[in-house]
Amino acid sequence: MPSELETCMESLIKVFHHYASKDGSGATLNRRDLRLLMENELSNFLKSQKDPAAVDKIMKDLDANGDGRVNFEEFVSLVVGLSVACEQCYQQHMKKTGKC
Amino acid sequence: MPSELETCMESLIKVFHHYASKDGSGATLNRRDLRLLMENELSNFLKSQKDPAAVDKIMKDLDANGDGRVNFEEFVSLVVGLSVACEQCYQQHMKKTGKC
Repeated sequence: MPSELETCMESLIKVFHHYASKDGSGATLNRRDLRLLMENELSNFLKSQKDPAAVDKIMKDLDANGDGRVNFEEFVSLVVGLSVACEQCYQQHMKKTGKC
Repeated sequence: MPSELETCMESLIKVFHHYASKDGSGATLNRRDLRLLMENELSNFLKSQKDPAAVDKIMKDLDANGDGRVNFEEFVSLVVGLSVACEQCYQQHMKKTGKC
């Protein structure tokens, strides 16, 4: 049975490929794919964004190689950014409650 | 109910804090914590490493700020590296089987 961390890595790959468009060069998220992924998988985060152009701005930030598409490596950097932000909140909460 | 991606982000934080040592500066993994985490959570990957000093080398690679400890951000970079490697295998497999 896979561990929690292995399951998490599998989820990252599964979620990305569920939304990614396939073409000759492999699987990537175009703007529409990314919007759908974020609306379905990161709806809480998206709701917290007041800016209606949030997805477009995130797309621009993630698309490190500037090809108008987000590959798996670029997608993972979004998950990392959100996880790091969540973890900082978690540490602050634990400090406040004296558990850290 | 959290989405698969939200659950994954929660798992990253949960697993890290399960193994991390707590001190005044927050939660970090020392060499012993990292070894335990990898033995329990990434045992398949660890088994594939022939080098008995693999954990030590990974510790050195991850410890970007050189303080002898791995913080959450440094830990996530390990998960990212492994996920990206797994995803490349997955894409190659899909191309071979004509699904990508």
